[in-house]
Amino acid sequence: MVNETQHTCNASSSSRSEGGSSSGSESSKDNSRCSTPVLDADRHERLREKMRRRQEAGDKWFSLEFFPPRTANAAVNLISRFDRMGAGGPLFIDVTWHPAGDPGSDKETSSMIIANTAVNYCGLETILHMTCCNQTKDDITGHLQKAKRLGLKNIMALRGDPAGEEWEEEVDGFNYAVDLVKHIRNEFDDYFDICVAGYPKGHPEAESYEADLRHLKEKVFAGADFIITQLFFQPETFLKFMKDCQAIGITCPIIPGIFPIQGYHSLRQLVKLSKLEVPQEIKDVIEPIKDNDAAIRNYGVELAVSMCRELLDSGMVHGLHFYTLNREVATTEVLKRLGIWKEDPRRPLPWAVSAHPKRRVEDVRPIFWASRPKSYIYRTQEWDDFPNGRWGNSSSPAFGELKDYYLFYLKSKSPREELLKMWGEELTGEESVFEVFTCYITGEPNRNGYKVTCMPWNDDPLATETNLLKDQLEKVNRRGILTINSQPNINGKPSTDPIVGWGPSGGYVFQKAYLEFFTSSEIVTALLKVLKKYELRVNYHIVNVKGQNITNAPDLQPNAVTWGIFPGREIIQPTVVDPVSFLSWKDEAFALWIEQWAKLYEEESPSRMIIQYIHDNYYLVNLVDNDFPLENCLWQVVEDTFELLN
Amino acid sequence: MVNETQHTCNASSSSRSEGGSSSGSESSKDNSRCSTPVLDADRHERLREKMRRRQEAGDKWFSLEFFPPRTANAAVNLISRFDRMGAGGPLFIDVTWHPAGDPGSDKETSSMIIANTAVNYCGLETILHMTCCNQTKDDITGHLQKAKRLGLKNIMALRGDPAGEEWEEEVDGFNYAVDLVKHIRNEFDDYFDICVAGYPKGHPEAESYEADLRHLKEKVFAGADFIITQLFFQPETFLKFMKDCQAIGITCPIIPGIFPIQGYHSLRQLVKLSKLEVPQEIKDVIEPIKDNDAAIRNYGVELAVSMCRELLDSGMVHGLHFYTLNREVATTEVLKRLGIWKEDPRRPLPWAVSAHPKRRVEDVRPIFWASRPKSYIYRTQEWDDFPNGRWGNSSSPAFGELKDYYLFYLKSKSPREELLKMWGEELTGEESVFEVFTCYITGEPNRNGYKVTCMPWNDDPLATETNLLKDQLEKVNRRGILTINSQPNINGKPSTDPIVGWGPSGGYVFQKAYLEFFTSSEIVTALLKVLKKYELRVNYHIVNVKGQNITNAPDLQPNAVTWGIFPGREIIQPTVVDPVSFLSWKDEAFALWIEQWAKLYEEESPSRMIIQYIHDNYYLVNLVDNDFPLENCLWQVVEDTFELLN
Repeated sequence: MVNETQHTCNASSSSRSEGGSSSGSESSKDNSRCSTPVLDADRHERLREKMRRRQEAGDKWFSLEFFPPRTANAAVNLISRFDRMGAGGPLFIDVTWHPAGDPGSDKETSSMIIANTAVNYCGLETILHMTCCNQTKDDITGHLQKAKRLGLKNIMALRGDPAGEEWEEEVDGFNYAVDLVKHIRNEFDDYFDICVAGYPKGHPEAESYEADLRHLKEKVFAGADFIITQLFFQPETFLKFMKDCQAIGITCPIIPGIFPIQGYHSLRQLVKLSKLEVPQEIKDVIEPIKDNDAAIRNYGVELAVSMCRELLDSGMVHGLHFYTLNREVATTEVLKRLGIWKEDPRRPLPWAVSAHPKRRVEDVRPIFWASRPKSYIYRTQEWDDFPNGRWGNSSSPAFGELKDYYLFYLKSKSPREELLKMWGEELTGEESVFEVFTCYITGEPNRNGYKVTCMPWNDDPLATETNLLKDQLEKVNRRGILTINSQPNINGKPSTDPIVGWGPSGGYVFQKAYLEFFTSSEIVTALLKVLKKYELRVNYHIVNVKGQNITNAPDLQPNAVTWGIFPGREIIQPTVVDPVSFLSWKDEAFALWIEQWAKLYEEESPSRMIIQYIHDNYYLVNLVDNDFPLENCLWQVVEDTFELLN
Repeated sequence: MVNETQHTCNASSSSRSEGGSSSGSESSKDNSRCSTPVLDADRHERLREKMRRRQEAGDKWFSLEFFPPRTANAAVNLISRFDRMGAGGPLFIDVTWHPAGDPGSDKETSSMIIANTAVNYCGLETILHMTCCNQTKDDITGHLQKAKRLGLKNIMALRGDPAGEEWEEEVDGFNYAVDLVKHIRNEFDDYFDICVAGYPKGHPEAESYEADLRHLKEKVFAGADFIITQLFFQPETFLKFMKDCQAIGITCPIIPGIFPIQGYHSLRQLVKLSKLEVPQEIKDVIEPIKDNDAAIRNYGVELAVSMCRELLDSGMVHGLHFYTLNREVATTEVLKRLGIWKEDPRRPLPWAVSAHPKRRVEDVRPIFWASRPKSYIYRTQEWDDFPNGRWGNSSSPAFGELKDYYLFYLKSKSPREELLKMWGEELTGEESVFEVFTCYITGEPNRNGYKVTCMPWNDDPLATETNLLKDQLEKVNRRGILTINSQPNINGKPSTDPIVGWGPSGGYVFQKAYLEFFTSSEIVTALLKVLKKYELRVNYHIVNVKGQNITNAPDLQPNAVTWGIFPGREIIQPTVVDPVSFLSWKDEAFALWIEQWAKLYEEESPSRMIIQYIHDNYYLVNLVDNDFPLENCLWQVVEDTFELLN
C-alpha cells in the first residue's frame, strides 16, 4: 500500500499540473525480435526512430510508467520489477520526477538515480520526467547535463506543480512545459528525444479544450517528438482528441495513457487530484464491489483490455502507455491478454545489453559477472574500453574499487532474517556450507525447511541453462566443490533455441563448458595433479584471497567461451574468460563471503569463524574445456580429483 | 644454367671478400609448428629470439640463401621458388647484395626489391645482405632506411669487394664489415638483427687464421647477433672453427654454411674464386664422373647429407645454412633426407601471413584475393587498417590503384605463347571461354591438348580444398557460371586437418560455403528470382563493370566465412566477405579479362572482341551460404537457376 499511496500523491501532483502523462521503454532485449536480423543497427537507434519503425512495420508496442520509491529497500524491489517487466518487451519505461524526493540528487531513491539504474543496469530504454516550474535555468541545465552524463537520452518535459496556491507567471522564467522544451532544444540541440503531455479532456486549468489543444501544438512545434496523454476512461475520449490534434496540424505520435483500475481507494484519490470525472457506468459497477479488491482488479483488467482493443482496432493507435502505479500484476495481465507482452527467449546477446548509448556497442564481457551483471556494469561504468580493447576506444581501464560495493543496487534483495533462514542460523562446520550450496543447486528445502533461492554470488535462482547441469553440480557441491558459475558446452544450437539461444535468427550459438568454484587447498593440490593429464584441453585459473595465482593460460589472452555465427555478420564472441578481469573478480568473489555471509553472524561466533576460515583458506578455481564438440570433460576432471583423494 | 653461372659470379665475389656467407628465413607458416600453441607471441618474435627458442627446444632448423636474378622473368620464377621452398619451413632466407645489379634500387631484380618481395609477399623471415666497401655513409644509411621502411629487420653486414686490385684503407671510411656493424648499431640502435660472416679456414686475405678469428670477435663485439660461415668441405673444419671461436669468447650462434655440390663446372669456378681448396678425396670421386651431371649431383647430395648429419650429431650445431645457388632440387633433397624439411599442412591462418612487422598482426582478409594474395598485399601496403578496422589502427584506408597492377610480381608467370595455348589461339564464342574455365577446373587437356594450369584470376592450379568441389564446379562452368573462387562449408574440422586445417593444434575450423563467378545478365536475371527463395539463408553481391550493384547484405558489414576456435584464445576470423573491398576487387577482377586475356589477341580480332564483350556485359557474383552446418545449398541455387532458364 505504500507504493499505491505514494503513487496517488505523485499522480495527483502531475495531473494537477502537466505531469500526469508519461511514458515507458523498449528493452534492448527487444532488438532481436525485429524481422530483419540487424543486431547493431537497432542498438544505435533513437527512441523516436524505434517508434517510427514499429509503426511502419505494423508492430504494436507498449510502455510502462513508474515513480521513484521512498526507501532504498523499495528501490531494490522496483529494480527487480524492472527486470521482470522488461522481459515482456516494453518499447520504453519512464520514471516520474518527484520534486519532494530531491529528484536530481544522487540518493538511491531519486528520479535521476532510478532512471540511471533502468537505463544502465536493466538495459531499458528510459524517459526521465523533468518539471521546470519554480526552478532556475541553472538548476534545470544542471539536471539535463547530469542526465546526459548518465546515458539518459529521453526527457518528458513538464511544467510541474506551482508552489502554493497563488501562482503567478514569472517574466523570462519557466512558466509552462513549452519553456522547458525550448530550453532543451536551445542548450542540447537534438541530443534528447522530448516527450510532452496531452490532455484528452483538456487540462483542468486551461481556459478551454481548444485553448489546451493550441498549447499542445506550441509544445510540439517547439521541438517535442511525441505526446503521451493523461489517463481517460473511454476510448472515444482519446480518439476524438487525436482527431482534433490532427485537425490543427499535430502530426507527431500521440500515445494513449492507460490506467488499469486496481483498487477503489486509489481510484477515488486519483480522481480527486486529477479533476477527472469517472463515467457513471463505471461508478455503477464499482460501488457495489468496493470492498472486494480482487473483484475490482478483475473489472479493471477487463475494462482496460476492452478499451485497449478498441484503440488498437481503430488503426490510429500503435502503442499503449501504462500507468503501472509501480505494480506488476494488473498491467502484465492486460498486456498478456492483448497479446503484446512478448516474452521472448531470444536475446541480442547472452547477457542483458545496457541501454547506455556508449555501452550499447559492448559485445564482450568476462564470464565472471554472469550472475552479478549490475555489479559488472557498475564497476566498469567509467570505462570506454574492455581490458583487451574489445569495446570502445579509450585506454587503460581499471575495474571500479570494491568500496563502491555497498551501493543499493548491488545489495541483496533479501533481509537478514531471510538470509539466515536460507544459509543457516548456525553453522557447524564446512559441511554446513556445502549443504547450503547443494540446496541452492537442487532447489530442495534445507534442513530447516527453507529453500535457498539466492547466494552471495547469485542474486537469482539457478538459470534455466545451468539446470542442464543440475545433477552433476549437486554431486560435486556435496563434496566441497562449491560452484558459483557454470555453463554447458554447446556445439552449434540454433540462435532461436529457447534456452541457450541469442542473437538474430538464422544463426548458430556455441559455448565451451565452464565451471567456477571455491574449494579447499587439499582439493586444489589433487586437482592440479589431475589437470596435468588435461593440459592441452583444459585451461585453468586458480587463485586464493592473497592473490597466489596458478594458471596454464597462454600470456594474458582472453579465452572466448560463448560465440555466435550469424547470417551476413562477423563472428560475435560475447563472453570470455579474461585473465585480467579474473583478478578483479577474485577480490569481489572473496569479499562476498564476508560482506554478505559472515557478517550475518555475531563477531567471534563459530558460524562467522567458519565463513572467515573458508574466505582465508579456500581457492577460487575456473576451468574451461576447450574441446566444445566433445562431451564436457570437466566432470571427469572433478571425478578424477576425488578419486585421487580417496 | 643462367642461374648457375650467375651464382658462380656472385658466390665468387662474396668469397673473395667477406660476402660468401649468408643466411636464410623462417616462414611465418612455421609458427604453428611449435609445441606451445601460441599464435601471436611467435608472430612478434625477432629472428635472434626465434633462433634461441629453437635451440632451447632442441628443434633443428635450416635456412636458405638466394641471389638476385638478372631478368624480371627470372625474378618471377625465383618468387615461385620462394613460395615452394618456404613450404619446407626455413627459419629464414637471405638475399645477397649484388653491387653490379644496383642492389638498393627499385628495379625488379635488385637485392632490395627481391628481399622486399620475400618478406612482404611470400611471408618469409628475410635477411638482406649489405656491403659497405667503397660507399659513402649517406648511401649506406639510405639503404638501411629503405630496408627498414620495407619491413626488413635483418641485415648481413659485409665488407664487399674493393674496387680494383690496389685497394687501400680509407681513413674514417667503411673499410671492414665491423665498420658497417658499428654504423648500424649507431644509427639504428637495436632495430636490426645483424649477421656477420665467419671463415672456417680463415679469410683468404687475413694475415693468419688467428688474426681472422680476432676480426670476427671484433664484429661480434661491435653488435652482431650471429655468424654464418663460408662453405667448407669437411665437418671437422667447422667443428674446430667453432671451438676456436668459443675459446676466444665468441658465444653467439655460429651457423655452418652448407654447399651441396651440384655440378663440376660450378664447383671449379667457386673454388677458383673463393680460394678454397677441395680435399683430394672429393676430387678423386668427381674427376671420373665430371661429364655426368646426375652422378655429380647425387654425390653432392650424399656428401652434404653425411656432413650435415655429422654436424648435427656433434650437438654443437642447431641450424644449417644452405647455399642454394637459386636451385631447388639438391637442397630440398638434402633437407628431406635429413628430416628437417617440414612441409606441414598446418598454417597459422588460412592464408600466408606477411612477415612484415606491421602486417604480422593482420588476422583478417577479404576472401576475394584468395588466389591473388600478392596483389592484395601490394594494394594494401600503405594501410595500417582494414576497412572495417580489424587490423592496425590507422584510419580511412583505400585500396591501391589498379595502375600498380603491372608490377612484376603481379605478372603472370607464363609467357604469351603458353597462355595462348592454354586459353585458346582463337576463340569462336562465349562457349570457347566456358571451355577454358572447365578445363582449368577438371585438369583435363583442352581441345588442342594443352592443360590449363592458370587463369587470369588464379596464378596456380586448383587448391586441394577446391578439389573437393570439382564435380559441381565442372558442371556449372560448362553452362556459363564461370567460377573464379570458391570454398566448401566446414562444420568444425580439427585445426590439424591436412586439407582445411590452420592455426594451433587442438582447435576447430569452420567455413561458410562460398562461390564467386562471372556470368551473363540472362543468368543473373534468373538467379535473382531464385535467390528470393533463399533470402534468409544466402547473402549475395552482384555487380557489373559499370558498378551496378545488387545485394541483400545488411548495411556494409563483413560476413565472416572462415573462422577458428582454439584453446585459450579469442575467436579468429581470418576471411570475410567485405562489401567495401568487393567493389575494389570488382575493378581488378574485370580488368584482368582485358589485361591478361583480351590483350593476347590482335586489336579488333574476333577473339579479343569476345573477351571484351564478356568484360562489358557479364556480372561478377558472389554467394555465401550462411547455414554452414547444413549441406551447401549454393549448388541447388545454381541448379534452380538453370531450371528456371529452361
